[in-house]
Amino acid sequence: MKFTLLQECIAEFLGTMVLILFGTGVVAMVTLFADPATPGAVVNGGFSNINWAWGLGVLFGIFTAGTISGAHLNPAVSIGFAATGRFPWSKVLPYSLAQILGAFVGAAIVFGVYRGQFAVADPGLASTAGVFATFPALPGFWPGFFDQVVGTALLMGLILAVADKLNNKEGGAWGPLAIALIVVAIGMSFGALHGYAINPARDFGPRLMTLLAGFQNTGFGELRVWTVPIIGPIVGSVLGALIYDYAIGKPLQRAHLASQQAQQGMDTTPTAGPQ
Amino acid sequence: MKFTLLQECIAEFLGTMVLILFGTGVVAMVTLFADPATPGAVVNGGFSNINWAWGLGVLFGIFTAGTISGAHLNPAVSIGFAATGRFPWSKVLPYSLAQILGAFVGAAIVFGVYRGQFAVADPGLASTAGVFATFPALPGFWPGFFDQVVGTALLMGLILAVADKLNNKEGGAWGPLAIALIVVAIGMSFGALHGYAINPARDFGPRLMTLLAGFQNTGFGELRVWTVPIIGPIVGSVLGALIYDYAIGKPLQRAHLASQQAQQGMDTTPTAGPQ
Amino acid sequence: MKFTLLQECIAEFLGTMVLILFGTGVVAMVTLFADPATPGAVVNGGFSNINWAWGLGVLFGIFTAGTISGAHLNPAVSIGFAATGRFPWSKVLPYSLAQILGAFVGAAIVFGVYRGQFAVADPGLASTAGVFATFPALPGFWPGFFDQVVGTALLMGLILAVADKLNNKEGGAWGPLAIALIVVAIGMSFGALHGYAINPARDFGPRLMTLLAGFQNTGFGELRVWTVPIIGPIVGSVLGALIYDYAIGKPLQRAHLASQQAQQGMDTTPTAGPQ
Amino acid sequence: MKFTLLQECIAEFLGTMVLILFGTGVVAMVTLFADPATPGAVVNGGFSNINWAWGLGVLFGIFTAGTISGAHLNPAVSIGFAATGRFPWSKVLPYSLAQILGAFVGAAIVFGVYRGQFAVADPGLASTAGVFATFPALPGFWPGFFDQVVGTALLMGLILAVADKLNNKEGGAWGPLAIALIVVAIGMSFGALHGYAINPARDFGPRLMTLLAGFQNTGFGELRVWTVPIIGPIVGSVLGALIYDYAIGKPLQRAHLASQQAQQGMDTTPTAGPQ
Repeated sequence: MKFTLLQECIAEFLGTMVLILFGTGVVAMVTLFADPATPGAVVNGGFSNINWAWGLGVLFGIFTAGTISGAHLNPAVSIGFAATGRFPWSKVLPYSLAQILGAFVGAAIVFGVYRGQFAVADPGLASTAGVFATFPALPGFWPGFFDQVVGTALLMGLILAVADKLNNKEGGAWGPLAIALIVVAIGMSFGALHGYAINPARDFGPRLMTLLAGFQNTGFGELRVWTVPIIGPIVGSVLGALIYDYAIGKPLQRAHLASQQAQQGMDTTPTAGPQ
Repeated sequence: MKFTLLQECIAEFLGTMVLILFGTGVVAMVTLFADPATPGAVVNGGFSNINWAWGLGVLFGIFTAGTISGAHLNPAVSIGFAATGRFPWSKVLPYSLAQILGAFVGAAIVFGVYRGQFAVADPGLASTAGVFATFPALPGFWPGFFDQVVGTALLMGLILAVADKLNNKEGGAWGPLAIALIVVAIGMSFGALHGYAINPARDFGPRLMTLLAGFQNTGFGELRVWTVPIIGPIVGSVLGALIYDYAIGKPLQRAHLASQQAQQGMDTTPTAGPQ
Repeated sequence: MKFTLLQECIAEFLGTMVLILFGTGVVAMVTLFADPATPGAVVNGGFSNINWAWGLGVLFGIFTAGTISGAHLNPAVSIGFAATGRFPWSKVLPYSLAQILGAFVGAAIVFGVYRGQFAVADPGLASTAGVFATFPALPGFWPGFFDQVVGTALLMGLILAVADKLNNKEGGAWGPLAIALIVVAIGMSFGALHGYAINPARDFGPRLMTLLAGFQNTGFGELRVWTVPIIGPIVGSVLGALIYDYAIGKPLQRAHLASQQAQQGMDTTPTAGPQ
Repeated sequence: MKFTLLQECIAEFLGTMVLILFGTGVVAMVTLFADPATPGAVVNGGFSNINWAWGLGVLFGIFTAGTISGAHLNPAVSIGFAATGRFPWSKVLPYSLAQILGAFVGAAIVFGVYRGQFAVADPGLASTAGVFATFPALPGFWPGFFDQVVGTALLMGLILAVADKLNNKEGGAWGPLAIALIVVAIGMSFGALHGYAINPARDFGPRLMTLLAGFQNTGFGELRVWTVPIIGPIVGSVLGALIYDYAIGKPLQRAHLASQQAQQGMDTTPTAGPQ
C-alpha cells in the first residue's frame, strides 16, 4: 500500500496527538489533584501510572499511525532512521512539523479538559506548565543533556532491535507493545532528571501551547531548559542507531547473507535459484 | 458461525456483567476498606488497581462475548459502529438493553458480595454510591461532558484502529488485550473528572441498582450527574469513529483498493482473476 | 503425546509448587517487612504486587505443568472440568492430592526462605499464618462463602472462555497469560473478603504447613475459616462452568455444527465430504 | 545464521549493559530522590517500579542479544545451560566475562547520569552502593544463600520451561516477555533478602564499579556479602535445570519420541518415512 506525504503527515499528526493526549493527560491526573494535607501521598496512581500511561500513549500512537506513516511520532526517531539510511531525509522536516503540531493540539485538548482543575490547583497558571513540558531536576546543561542522550540512545537502539526482522523474527504481532514498553522502561529508570522527554516534538509542541495559554513557568526564559529536550534526543537517537547497527544489525546482515550464499552454493543449478 | 439475536443479547448481557463485576468490584476494594487513621494511604492497590482491573474487566468481557456478539459491552460503541455503517441500527436498542441489564446484575452481585463491608464503612448507604456510578469532580455540565467526549472519542477511534484488519494485520491474537489497554489508558489519563464512565450502560445500570438498593447519593437528583455519562459517550463515540475513518480508515481502504487494482492490471487475463 | 498418571501428578505437584512459591512469597514480602513507624505505608509493592505476583505464579505454574497435565493447579478447576465432562472423574482425587502436596511444599520452602524475617516480625509465630493461608474479613460463614463462589465462578467460566477453541481461535499463543490475568483481576476486585483463595489446594496445603511449623493462628480452630476456601471454590467452579456452557459454549457448538453441515450441504457429493 | 565468538560476546556485553542500565537506573530513581520529610512514602514508583523495570531490562537485553548470542546475560544461566548439555563449557568463561564487563559499563553509565543526584542525596558516597550492588537483609550466610538458590532455581527452571519447544509450542512470539516476567515475579516474591541478584554478573560488575568510583559501602569488606550473589545463583541455576529436566523436560522428550515412533509404525513403508 502506498500513501501520499500528506496522508503520512496526517497520520503522524494524529498519532502524536494520541500520544500526547494520554501522556500529558496522566501528568495532569497525578499532579493537579494532590491534597496539600497529605504530602508524599500517591495521587491517582502516581509516578507508576505516569510511566504506564506514556507507554500506552506510544502503543496507541503506533496503532493509529503505524500502517500509514510508520508511526515515528518523534523527530529524533525520524532523524535516527534518516541518519542510518532507513528513511529519506526529505521527509524529516514535514514529519517533524506534523509531530510538533499533533503534540501541540493534544496538549491543548488536555488543557481544555482539565481547565477547571487548573483553576483549582494553580489559578494563576504560575507553576504547572510541567504538566505539559519537561523541566530539569539538576542545575546546569550537562546532567539533563547526558540523561537525554542515554535515554534516547536506548529508545532508538531498542526500536531498531524490535523492528529489525532479522533480529526479531517472531515478534511482529506484539511489536507495538514491545516499543511501548521501551518507553515505560526509560520512564521508570531515566525519568527524574529531565522528565524523559526523549522526543523534541513531545516537549516543544506542548511547551508552545503553555506559552500561548498564558502559563508563567513555560521554561522558554532559560535556554537550556527547552533546548536540552531537543538537542539531547537528536544526538542520542543517532548514537543509539549507530551502536545497534555496529553491534547487532550489521553482524546479522552479514550472517544472513552468508547463510543465503551457503544455501545457493548447495543448489545443483546455482544460476537459477528457487522462486 | 451465525447466532440469533437472543444469543447475541445473552452474550452482551454476560460480557457486560463480567465487565461490571471486575469494574465495580475493584472500586469497592479500594474505597470501602480505607482506614480513617491514615488519610491519603493507598488501599488495596488504590487508583492503579482501579485502572488495571477495569481494563481486565474489558478483556474478560471480550473473551466472554467476543465471538458471539462482537462484545460491544457499551451502547456508545454499538452506536458508533452503527453510525459508520458497521452495525445494523436495528440491533442497537436490544444490544443496549442487554448491556444495561448485564451492568445492573453485575453491580447487584458486587453489592451482595460487599454488603457486610458496606455496613462497616457506610451503614446508612449515604455516601458510597460512587462504588457503582460515576460522579463529576467539577461543577457545571461542560467539564464532565467535554471529558466524556474526549475519553470516548479515544475509546472508539482506537477500537477501530485495533479492529481494522487493514490497519492491524498481525495483531489479531492479542486484539482483546489491546482494547483492554485502551480503557486502562483512558482511566489513567482521563479518569478523575467523571470517573471515566465512557459507557452509558456501565453508568446507568449500576446507578439504577443503587436506587433500588436504597443508596441515598444515587445522583439521580441532579440531571447533569446521570445524563453526562450517557450523552457524552454517545457524542464522543461517533466523533472518534468519524475521525478514524477520515484520517486512517478511508486512506487505508483507498490504498488497499489501488494496490489490488495494480495487481490485477499485471495479470495476463484480467477478466478472470485467481479465485 | 501421552503421559502416565504419575507423570501428570508430578507436573501438577511442581506447577502448584511454583504457584505457591510466588504466591505466598509475595505475601511474605508485603507483610513481614512493614515498618511499625509508618502505618498505612505501601511495603514492597503492597497489594498491587500481591495481585501481580499471584498472577505470575499462575502463569509459570501453567508453563511448568501445562503440556503434561493441563495445569489445573486447583482441585476446584479439576472438579469443574469433570462436572462438565471435560476431565475423567477418576483423576480428580490424584490430581487434587498432587496439588495439595505441591502447595504444602511450596509454602514450606517459602517459610524456609523467610524464616529469619519471621523471627524479626513475629517471633512467636502468633499472628502471621496469613502469609500462607486465607482468613475472612467479615464475621459469619456467608460473606466469605458468597465471595468465594463468585470469585471461583469467574475463574472457571473465564478459563473455559479462554481455553475453548471455538471461542478463542487466535489466542492460543498467549492463553497462559490470559488465564494468569483472570487471577490478577479476581485479586484486584474480589481479594479482600477471603484473600481470594479460589483454590482448595492453595489454601489447605499451606495451612497444613503452618500447623506443622508451629503457627498459632492457623485457622483450624474455627470451622468456617478453613472450610469456606474449600467448599466455596468447588461450588463456584461448577456454577461458572455451567453458566459458560449455557450462555456461550453450547451456542458456539451448535453454530459450529450448523456451519459445518451447511458447508457439507453445498458439496456436490454430500455422502463423501472432503477429508 | 552463524556468529563468531567475538560477535556473541559483544552481543552479551551489550545485552547485559542494557539490562543493567534499566535495572540499576530504576534503583537510582527510587532511592536517590526520597524526601526525608515523608518517610515510608513511595518515591518514583517504589518497589513495584523496581520489579517492572528489572523485568523490562531483561526483555530488552533479550531483544538486544537474543538472536546473536542467545541472551544469557547471566553467568549462572550459561553454567546451567552448560551443566545440562545445552551450551559448550568452553564458552562459559568468555560469555561470563562479557556479561560482567557489560554490567560494569552499564552501572558506570548510570552513575554518570545520576552523579549530580548522588551529590545531593549522599555527597560522600557513604551509603548508596545499594543502587548498584545487592546487600543481605538478614545476618549470616545461609538466609541470603538459600534465598539466592531458590530464586535462581526458579529462574533457570522456568527459562527452560519457556524455551523448550516441546513444552511451549505456541509461545515463541512472546517468549522474551515470558522470560522477563520470570524476573518480575522473582523480584516481587523473593526480592527482599538479597536484592534478588540471581545473577553473578549483575552483582559483581556493578559492585566493582562502586569500588572504583569511590563508594565506601561496597560490600567487599565482608566476604559473605559479595560471594553469596555469585555462589548462590550458580548452585540454584544447576538445581533448577536438573529439576526441570527430571520432572518436565525428560518426560516430554520420551513422550515425543514415542509419538514419533507410533506414527512411523503406522506407515505402510516403514523403512522410508516421509521427508
